[in-house]
Amino acid sequence: MARRYDSRTTTFSPEGRLYQVEYAMEAINNAGSTVGVLGKQCVILAGEKKTISKLLESGKASEKIYPIDDHVVCAVAGITSDANVLINQLRLSAQRYRYAYQEPIPVEKLVTSICDVKQQYTQFGGLRPFGVSFLFAGYDDHYGFQLYHTDPSGNLSGWKATAIGVNNQTAQGILKTDWHEDMSTKDCLDLVAKVLVKSMDTATPTAETLEFGVLTLNKDKEVAFRMLSDDEINTLMAAAKPEKPDDEE
Amino acid sequence: MARRYDSRTTTFSPEGRLYQVEYAMEAINNAGSTVGVLGKQCVILAGEKKTISKLLESGKASEKIYPIDDHVVCAVAGITSDANVLINQLRLSAQRYRYAYQEPIPVEKLVTSICDVKQQYTQFGGLRPFGVSFLFAGYDDHYGFQLYHTDPSGNLSGWKATAIGVNNQTAQGILKTDWHEDMSTKDCLDLVAKVLVKSMDTATPTAETLEFGVLTLNKDKEVAFRMLSDDEINTLMAAAKPEKPDDEE
Amino acid sequence: MARRYDSRTTTFSPEGRLYQVEYAMEAINNAGSTVGVLGKQCVILAGEKKTISKLLESGKASEKIYPIDDHVVCAVAGITSDANVLINQLRLSAQRYRYAYQEPIPVEKLVTSICDVKQQYTQFGGLRPFGVSFLFAGYDDHYGFQLYHTDPSGNLSGWKATAIGVNNQTAQGILKTDWHEDMSTKDCLDLVAKVLVKSMDTATPTAETLEFGVLTLNKDKEVAFRMLSDDEINTLMAAAKPEKPDDEE
Amino acid sequence: MARRYDSRTTTFSPEGRLYQVEYAMEAINNAGSTVGVLGKQCVILAGEKKTISKLLESGKASEKIYPIDDHVVCAVAGITSDANVLINQLRLSAQRYRYAYQEPIPVEKLVTSICDVKQQYTQFGGLRPFGVSFLFAGYDDHYGFQLYHTDPSGNLSGWKATAIGVNNQTAQGILKTDWHEDMSTKDCLDLVAKVLVKSMDTATPTAETLEFGVLTLNKDKEVAFRMLSDDEINTLMAAAKPEKPDDEE
Amino acid sequence: MARRYDSRTTTFSPEGRLYQVEYAMEAINNAGSTVGVLGKQCVILAGEKKTISKLLESGKASEKIYPIDDHVVCAVAGITSDANVLINQLRLSAQRYRYAYQEPIPVEKLVTSICDVKQQYTQFGGLRPFGVSFLFAGYDDHYGFQLYHTDPSGNLSGWKATAIGVNNQTAQGILKTDWHEDMSTKDCLDLVAKVLVKSMDTATPTAETLEFGVLTLNKDKEVAFRMLSDDEINTLMAAAKPEKPDDEE
Amino acid sequence: MARRYDSRTTTFSPEGRLYQVEYAMEAINNAGSTVGVLGKQCVILAGEKKTISKLLESGKASEKIYPIDDHVVCAVAGITSDANVLINQLRLSAQRYRYAYQEPIPVEKLVTSICDVKQQYTQFGGLRPFGVSFLFAGYDDHYGFQLYHTDPSGNLSGWKATAIGVNNQTAQGILKTDWHEDMSTKDCLDLVAKVLVKSMDTATPTAETLEFGVLTLNKDKEVAFRMLSDDEINTLMAAAKPEKPDDEE
Amino acid sequence: MARRYDSRTTTFSPEGRLYQVEYAMEAINNAGSTVGVLGKQCVILAGEKKTISKLLESGKASEKIYPIDDHVVCAVAGITSDANVLINQLRLSAQRYRYAYQEPIPVEKLVTSICDVKQQYTQFGGLRPFGVSFLFAGYDDHYGFQLYHTDPSGNLSGWKATAIGVNNQTAQGILKTDWHEDMSTKDCLDLVAKVLVKSMDTATPTAETLEFGVLTLNKDKEVAFRMLSDDEINTLMAAAKPEKPDDEE
Repeated sequence: MARRYDSRTTTFSPEGRLYQVEYAMEAINNAGSTVGVLGKQCVILAGEKKTISKLLESGKASEKIYPIDDHVVCAVAGITSDANVLINQLRLSAQRYRYAYQEPIPVEKLVTSICDVKQQYTQFGGLRPFGVSFLFAGYDDHYGFQLYHTDPSGNLSGWKATAIGVNNQTAQGILKTDWHEDMSTKDCLDLVAKVLVKSMDTATPTAETLEFGVLTLNKDKEVAFRMLSDDEINTLMAAAKPEKPDDEE
Repeated sequence: MARRYDSRTTTFSPEGRLYQVEYAMEAINNAGSTVGVLGKQCVILAGEKKTISKLLESGKASEKIYPIDDHVVCAVAGITSDANVLINQLRLSAQRYRYAYQEPIPVEKLVTSICDVKQQYTQFGGLRPFGVSFLFAGYDDHYGFQLYHTDPSGNLSGWKATAIGVNNQTAQGILKTDWHEDMSTKDCLDLVAKVLVKSMDTATPTAETLEFGVLTLNKDKEVAFRMLSDDEINTLMAAAKPEKPDDEE
Repeated sequence: MARRYDSRTTTFSPEGRLYQVEYAMEAINNAGSTVGVLGKQCVILAGEKKTISKLLESGKASEKIYPIDDHVVCAVAGITSDANVLINQLRLSAQRYRYAYQEPIPVEKLVTSICDVKQQYTQFGGLRPFGVSFLFAGYDDHYGFQLYHTDPSGNLSGWKATAIGVNNQTAQGILKTDWHEDMSTKDCLDLVAKVLVKSMDTATPTAETLEFGVLTLNKDKEVAFRMLSDDEINTLMAAAKPEKPDDEE
Repeated sequence: MARRYDSRTTTFSPEGRLYQVEYAMEAINNAGSTVGVLGKQCVILAGEKKTISKLLESGKASEKIYPIDDHVVCAVAGITSDANVLINQLRLSAQRYRYAYQEPIPVEKLVTSICDVKQQYTQFGGLRPFGVSFLFAGYDDHYGFQLYHTDPSGNLSGWKATAIGVNNQTAQGILKTDWHEDMSTKDCLDLVAKVLVKSMDTATPTAETLEFGVLTLNKDKEVAFRMLSDDEINTLMAAAKPEKPDDEE
Repeated sequence: MARRYDSRTTTFSPEGRLYQVEYAMEAINNAGSTVGVLGKQCVILAGEKKTISKLLESGKASEKIYPIDDHVVCAVAGITSDANVLINQLRLSAQRYRYAYQEPIPVEKLVTSICDVKQQYTQFGGLRPFGVSFLFAGYDDHYGFQLYHTDPSGNLSGWKATAIGVNNQTAQGILKTDWHEDMSTKDCLDLVAKVLVKSMDTATPTAETLEFGVLTLNKDKEVAFRMLSDDEINTLMAAAKPEKPDDEE
Repeated sequence: MARRYDSRTTTFSPEGRLYQVEYAMEAINNAGSTVGVLGKQCVILAGEKKTISKLLESGKASEKIYPIDDHVVCAVAGITSDANVLINQLRLSAQRYRYAYQEPIPVEKLVTSICDVKQQYTQFGGLRPFGVSFLFAGYDDHYGFQLYHTDPSGNLSGWKATAIGVNNQTAQGILKTDWHEDMSTKDCLDLVAKVLVKSMDTATPTAETLEFGVLTLNKDKEVAFRMLSDDEINTLMAAAKPEKPDDEE
Repeated sequence: MARRYDSRTTTFSPEGRLYQVEYAMEAINNAGSTVGVLGKQCVILAGEKKTISKLLESGKASEKIYPIDDHVVCAVAGITSDANVLINQLRLSAQRYRYAYQEPIPVEKLVTSICDVKQQYTQFGGLRPFGVSFLFAGYDDHYGFQLYHTDPSGNLSGWKATAIGVNNQTAQGILKTDWHEDMSTKDCLDLVAKVLVKSMDTATPTAETLEFGVLTLNKDKEVAFRMLSDDEINTLMAAAKPEKPDDEE
């Protein structure tokens, strides 16, 4: 039955569903695990790279985490080329705001703008939805550290901790249990590592398949973003691994 | 039979129905309960949030109730990203009017403008209707407090009390029985709480899943809008709960 | 057979019919009864409201009768949101004419303009016809009191008395029998009430489900429009009710 | 077989036919009888009105015969709202010519212009042909009195006498037998009446269902158009009725 | 099999054929016989009119032969209203050239321009090919007398003698046998008459159903075009008729 | 299976093929044999004309070989009207370059430009590919004599000798065997004649069905193009005919 | 099942896949082997030409490797005419940058720009994806030598060594085993030759079917690109051939 209504974004099913949008979301459920955690003084984004090869140049065309502006970073799950187009727009919006008002764009304002673009692609014929979800980590003076999630429908939500991609149910379960207020940056990193260990399909995830980004304030109280080094990631992941390989821990 | 005419907004069925518009409305019948009540000195909007997680940032991207201008607020039922696009237009219209005429836009004028936008999306090919209904609470000098409902077809109606979303039949029944002229703000809040208790699927609704907005005049006789705090909501809901958990009360 | 040609306005059936236009008209046959009667010194429009609830605000977004200009009023049968779009255009046309020529727009000219709009929506792809019929009551110095009917195809006809909506065959039969030249305003109102009693599905129609509009000349010989009050309507309807509830009278 | 090629104007059938255009013509074959006759000093147009009701205002929105300019009149068979759009264009073209060249537009030039419009609607996708045929009666200094026929395909032909609509085969047969050169205006009117009596479905056609238009030169040798009065029509029709109601005469 | 590829001009069949263009050509094979012959000092065009009625005005809207400019004439086979649109363009091109360069447009240049228009209608979606072929008779100083044929695909070919329409195979056979260099105008007319007698479906073709056009140089060596009178045509056809009505001669 | 993907240029088949483009190429495989050979001091183009009639004017609208500019000529295989449109563009490009830079356009640059046009028609909806292949013979100072082939996909290749159209496999086989470096113009013509004798369906091809074009340098070392006369062609073909009519030689 | 969702780029399958994009990629898997290897002081691109004929002009319209600017070269796998269009854009972008900033365009910036173009063709109706993948070899001061791969989806990745086209799995396996840091240009060439020997379908690949391009720094430390000569290629391939023709080595 559903099949009569599932080939166009401009067609509602009799139950009022938009199947094409749901199918686009399905693409994201198969993407590599992507986790975001909001700490007291930080936001952590981390993700699993699906295409792995020792011949890949790691520094070029990073597959998961993209800086947008000094104070906003995003992690991508879904179709990378769709993401690139939106990231270009995000960067442009951020710079235009900075140029016009001489201050960084508020994080929610930036994220909202791209949601409206995504929504357009779900309502007009001759288009398909963007097959990509983002986790945004940002900081601004008004709201401090923030973590947002947007999906292909153009929906936007603010989170304290969330996960998308493969096994996101498992990941969200762990986050719900373990996240608490006032986590230090170290706590957050450990939590992310724990979530990734549990939700990734790989038995022993290493720096080769992972990216970690940390948004914090530096000692001058300026927002600063950095990617963890391979060594840092491996250390984190090793610590996060269950000591005894118990089934289901 | 109906299936031959139900995939495009530009096709009438032989009985003169527009199935795509009806399907869009179906989406709203599955949305969280949303209630509006007009009192003597107030309008109350309240709604059930469907996505609930203790990890959600409550202050960001509120899911049900959005202020449009100082004197107009709306509650949303349906596709949130569709709603965002329309809310942006509503806010812009309100500000433009205020700028041009140096006074707040009349509520009905504002609401009518968005209905015309919705209607366009039901008559042209290559589009789908907006999958969202609004309850508008407003105040202006001419008509005082007002409550309006618009649906995906672009229809507009003025109400004294109404409910949309899941179990709206039950909700409307209670409103029809209990609403009366000259209700105080307290009466209105109690009525809304009672309706929500009866119409929500959750056994024990709490502030975590609910939003309440109140539009009243403050002591300077200026219109003022505020969201109830979690405590206020919980108090209301507790009071509204049937004392003994009798079946069907 | 017909089904091969009935999904697009741009397709003639082998017998030269436009099924989509006919389907749009079908929507109107299910709308509430709407009656117009031309008297010696008046035009009466009246109609049955389909959505009835004591919680509906009666003064807001009247469902049946809309003034266009001082000298033109219309009653609507069909899709209300479609009607709103056309009514906006009608009002604008009327005001533009008044501004340009410093006199009210001739009624037929105004009505013709909206018929051409309706026709366009029956000839081009990617559109659907407007699902709405109008009865126009108007007065101008050239033709005096006038009553027009337009349907979704864009057809226009001048009438002395006519009815559209549910049971319009019955209604038209009564009008054909009872209408005569030189009817006073009172005669007209009684005739309309009689027609409504017979054609409405409700056993005992009251002011709650009815609207009556009267266009007459006031004592200064200026055209004036007014809606009947609930009391007036109830009095009329009570008088029109068959004294004994005989079956089929 | 034909059904594969009959839903779009942009599709030729294997035999090189355009079914959509033929279907549009079919609509006209079901329209009321419409007759045109060219006399020595006149052109007569007459037609049967399909919608008849004593409640119809006869002077408003005449259903069959429309003046275009002082020297051109047309009779319409088919979809009235389609006709209105084309008649508006014809009137505008006629006035523009008169304004630019200070003389009436040549009849053939005027008629050709509307044929090109009709042709466009048979060659492009997303449109349907105009479902209307016209008989044009005109006079200009160059060609004198003229009678033209245009159909939905945009074809144009000049006639001495022709008939379209219901039973046009019968009507054309009578015209072919009875028409001769140098007919007086009276002869022409009698011929038209005879044709209508034979071709109309109604047993006893009267002025209520008929319109007659006569284009002649007045005593100042100026072209003049007038509609016959009801009395004149009834007299004509009475005279045209076969004396004994023989079957099939 | 063919039927999968024959509904759009934008679809090649697996053998690389464009069925819609071929179907358009089929329409021309059913059109009235149309013949063109190039003589030493002339070009003759002649054609059979399909719509015949003694009530048709012969001088108005000639069905087969249209002058384009003083030195170019065309005969039409196929859909007349399609032809009208192209003839308008041809006349305009010819006049523009004459205005710009103060000399008549070269015949081949004129004919090529309309072929490109026709080609466009075979390559783009939402259009159908023009259902019309032309024979062009022209004269210019460079090439002298010329005869061209264009078909719905936009193909162009120069001929010494050719025939299109019904029975064109028969007609071309006769032309191939009987045409020779240095034919006088009289020879050419006789040949055309002979061809028409053989290829027309009518047993005894007369001036009523035929048009003959002759393009020659007049005594001042200026190019001149004239249509033959009915008497001339009848004389020609009578002479061309086989003396004894042998079957198949 | 293939049939699901073969009706639109915008659809890839599961194996990554574009059937519509392949179908367009099929049209060319059925076109008349067309051969190009590059010699030491010349390029020869020759082709078989498919439409043959002694009544065809040979000088007008040559069917196979078209000069583009003094130094570039092309031979056409496929849909002639498609070719005409592209040849117009080629001639315009050549003249624009000559006007802008005061020197002839480089051959490859010219040929590339038309390939890009062809490619566009294979990637966008609502269009069909151009159903035509070209052989280009050209000369410029940089590369000397050149021979190119372009097909409906927009592919471009440089050749020493190639053949397209009917039996092109046979023709290419002969060319592969017999072509060698440093062929004189006479050698080239003999080779082309041999290829045509073998690949044409006609038993005894003569000048009536053939066109030969030769691009060489004249005694002033200027590039010069000429078509062979009928006598020259007949001589060539007679010489190329196998002495004894052995089957398969 | 998949077949319902595989004919348009604007349709997601229920698993969130875009079949049309995958089909376009399939075209590339059938293209000739194409290999890129990054060395310490060089980037090597090499590829197999699918169309081979001794009559092909080798210098014209090279089938595999195209220079973009002095410092960027690309190898092509897939539909050549699609590639040409993109290469034109690449060259233009490179020159515009050079003109605007007086320095060569950064390689990643150039490559990214064409990826965005490719992405557009996967998201809008009425288009098909570009059926072509590129390997880009480039050098700039910031990142030194670089090797990128882009596919029809618009995805971009940086590689140390990669292979696309026929048997790319085999090729990538060898690269993964044999590639190491600090390879000299000679090492790289040998590795590429080894990969081609193993992955090409031809038993004994020679210069006739291969192209090799080398991007290095010359003695002035300027970036320089050159194609290997046929002799060089043959020497390389001979050396790369397994000494004993063991099955599967």
